[in-house]
Amino acid sequence: MANESALAETNRIEAFSDGIFAIAITLLVLELHVPEVEDGQLWHALQEEWPQFAAYLTSFAILGIMWINHHSMFRQIQRADRGLMFLNLLLLLWTALLPFPTNLFATYLDHHSIDANVAAAVYSANLTLAAIAFSAIWWHALRKHLIDHEMSAKEQRASVLRYSVGTAFYAACIGLSFISAPLTLLVQFLLAVYYGFEQLRSK
Amino acid sequence: MANESALAETNRIEAFSDGIFAIAITLLVLELHVPEVEDGQLWHALQEEWPQFAAYLTSFAILGIMWINHHSMFRQIQRADRGLMFLNLLLLLWTALLPFPTNLFATYLDHHSIDANVAAAVYSANLTLAAIAFSAIWWHALRKHLIDHEMSAKEQRASVLRYSVGTAFYAACIGLSFISAPLTLLVQFLLAVYYGFEQLRSK
Amino acid sequence: MANESALAETNRIEAFSDGIFAIAITLLVLELHVPEVEDGQLWHALQEEWPQFAAYLTSFAILGIMWINHHSMFRQIQRADRGLMFLNLLLLLWTALLPFPTNLFATYLDHHSIDANVAAAVYSANLTLAAIAFSAIWWHALRKHLIDHEMSAKEQRASVLRYSVGTAFYAACIGLSFISAPLTLLVQFLLAVYYGFEQLRSK
Amino acid sequence: MANESALAETNRIEAFSDGIFAIAITLLVLELHVPEVEDGQLWHALQEEWPQFAAYLTSFAILGIMWINHHSMFRQIQRADRGLMFLNLLLLLWTALLPFPTNLFATYLDHHSIDANVAAAVYSANLTLAAIAFSAIWWHALRKHLIDHEMSAKEQRASVLRYSVGTAFYAACIGLSFISAPLTLLVQFLLAVYYGFEQLRSK
Repeated sequence: MANESALAETNRIEAFSDGIFAIAITLLVLELHVPEVEDGQLWHALQEEWPQFAAYLTSFAILGIMWINHHSMFRQIQRADRGLMFLNLLLLLWTALLPFPTNLFATYLDHHSIDANVAAAVYSANLTLAAIAFSAIWWHALRKHLIDHEMSAKEQRASVLRYSVGTAFYAACIGLSFISAPLTLLVQFLLAVYYGFEQLRSK
Repeated sequence: MANESALAETNRIEAFSDGIFAIAITLLVLELHVPEVEDGQLWHALQEEWPQFAAYLTSFAILGIMWINHHSMFRQIQRADRGLMFLNLLLLLWTALLPFPTNLFATYLDHHSIDANVAAAVYSANLTLAAIAFSAIWWHALRKHLIDHEMSAKEQRASVLRYSVGTAFYAACIGLSFISAPLTLLVQFLLAVYYGFEQLRSK
Repeated sequence: MANESALAETNRIEAFSDGIFAIAITLLVLELHVPEVEDGQLWHALQEEWPQFAAYLTSFAILGIMWINHHSMFRQIQRADRGLMFLNLLLLLWTALLPFPTNLFATYLDHHSIDANVAAAVYSANLTLAAIAFSAIWWHALRKHLIDHEMSAKEQRASVLRYSVGTAFYAACIGLSFISAPLTLLVQFLLAVYYGFEQLRSK
Repeated sequence: MANESALAETNRIEAFSDGIFAIAITLLVLELHVPEVEDGQLWHALQEEWPQFAAYLTSFAILGIMWINHHSMFRQIQRADRGLMFLNLLLLLWTALLPFPTNLFATYLDHHSIDANVAAAVYSANLTLAAIAFSAIWWHALRKHLIDHEMSAKEQRASVLRYSVGTAFYAACIGLSFISAPLTLLVQFLLAVYYGFEQLRSK
């Protein structure tokens, strides 16, 4: 088997994916708007924009962790097939889309109507779809033996379970969205921080 | 012949092209606008924005497939000459431009006037010009013997024919635009999915 | 120790960071707006926009120097651990955010109210937080022995002191913001030029 | 001399510069705005936007050629020193800025007032400053012996002269701006095409 060419293949998928992660994470800043205020009201107006900053910070953390997770997954994948490229493109779709629900969530977070819940649910749905894409990539790589090292059936089940639990947490946030939008954002941020530590510990 | 330097040359063309594909595909999200609504109308307003989401999804799929196609073409090209660089720059022009007709199409897709057809035709024309650039790159590479492997005259004709058929499909969509704009978008999406599978199968 | 894999690890952190530096520095231009004027007033209107250009130039210089500094730091770091990745992500947060306070500063620089001072202070605070992240990365790399060469305790203290002095200068600019906003921008620009020369001399 | 490290140095300058070229060329599309029209007026409105498309095409060609030129220059430069990094950052400043004068030029190109000339002159000044930065990089590389091959004094003079002539052409366009703005855009486009062919021929 053309092993070197297969490696080159996963390298270019990673480079393209890294580009999209880096661009999406940097585009988030375009959703922060400079307030137009009467003289002397700028500091107050910036404080009023806290939902923008909270959503920015949360999405930055999530995309940062997704990037780390993506790399650690592809470090273990040594070959790419057609299914992997398709599933990875699906993941990149949800990654590149995130600035939109971030902006939506930030705009409606402090509305006292069902709109805040809808925005939170759309944001959570986007993250759930990204988590499903991550699970599908891993599950596909296991099933097609694209992994570079032997894993026992038990290890495989454990790793699949781990991704499924993550997906379930994000899906649960869709429900949580209809209880409290600000709480949903907080939980999303804490999930990112938790996964950051968990991911980095396993290195 | 300085083979290594020639390879370095195609590598840097690929890296630059990859950058533009990744940026263009990520910039698409900037055309999705957060609706401003009366209390309680957000979910309804998001549904009203379906043309934006449909156009986003279609252009994302098209740019993703173009990226895969570009790479698989340049994996076979081992040397770059002046014509190749010029034709590749032409392809990148249509690639980087795509967010504009995407936005145009999304804005006018559900207008009940000739404007929907005009927008669909502009979108289809952009894709046709990209397909022509792809064909021209491949035709030029064959004619100038920039390919890394021997191809029989029959194989060459078959590969050129394949690109010509693709270009003809996109050109036919310009005509289809004047029959139905939404149908044109659907066909473009299905073409992208078809090429995705066809491209990935041939790997 | 898997030395090669560790190097690959720092290489990908650098590539991702470089991407974010390059994108943030290029996105700055989106904050420059074409003035809408009465016939014959364009040149005058462009001159009125001097705060936009001054802020653009200053942030470009700062991000350029930060990129040089980041690279020269990571050239000395040969291994990445969990703390390093976290601290680097923190630095990238302040890097990717900079276009926002740049825009804020440019908008309010010539307001004759406390708002100019608030904007200058927010800008300076962003840079101070970036400087703290730089110090923390270096301090962490020293403490965890991630550096590729031996440094005497004296050399280590000198290098830490150098970063602390830089951070103190940026923090002092938060205070200076409340004395004069334009003077703050000038000092920030001069700091960037000074660090540029200092950084480049030490190469 | 640490030759390998010096090469790594110029490689990373190239990668960072390539990123900025790719981002700036792709951001140009954000200046193309979807016209808002009465029913049935879209095609007419798009034709009215010809200055936007002409300016887009010209700046795309110019940035594409600058990218090719930058690479062909850095392929000959084998070492980077402090001056080179500073001059390259200066070139990137004018590169990353170009979307702004492009937008300015496109907005005022068909105004029948001095504003069209002012916009053309600002655009030409940006390109002149970029040409000066290119000349300065080359002149500095020659003077500091950063080039990877021997050049006779005569060859050196010829290469410096070539850059000076280019700079003079761009400077002359500042003057031409006050005669005719559309003619200036046409000349800028033709200059880009000419340099494209000249540059690619010399490969």
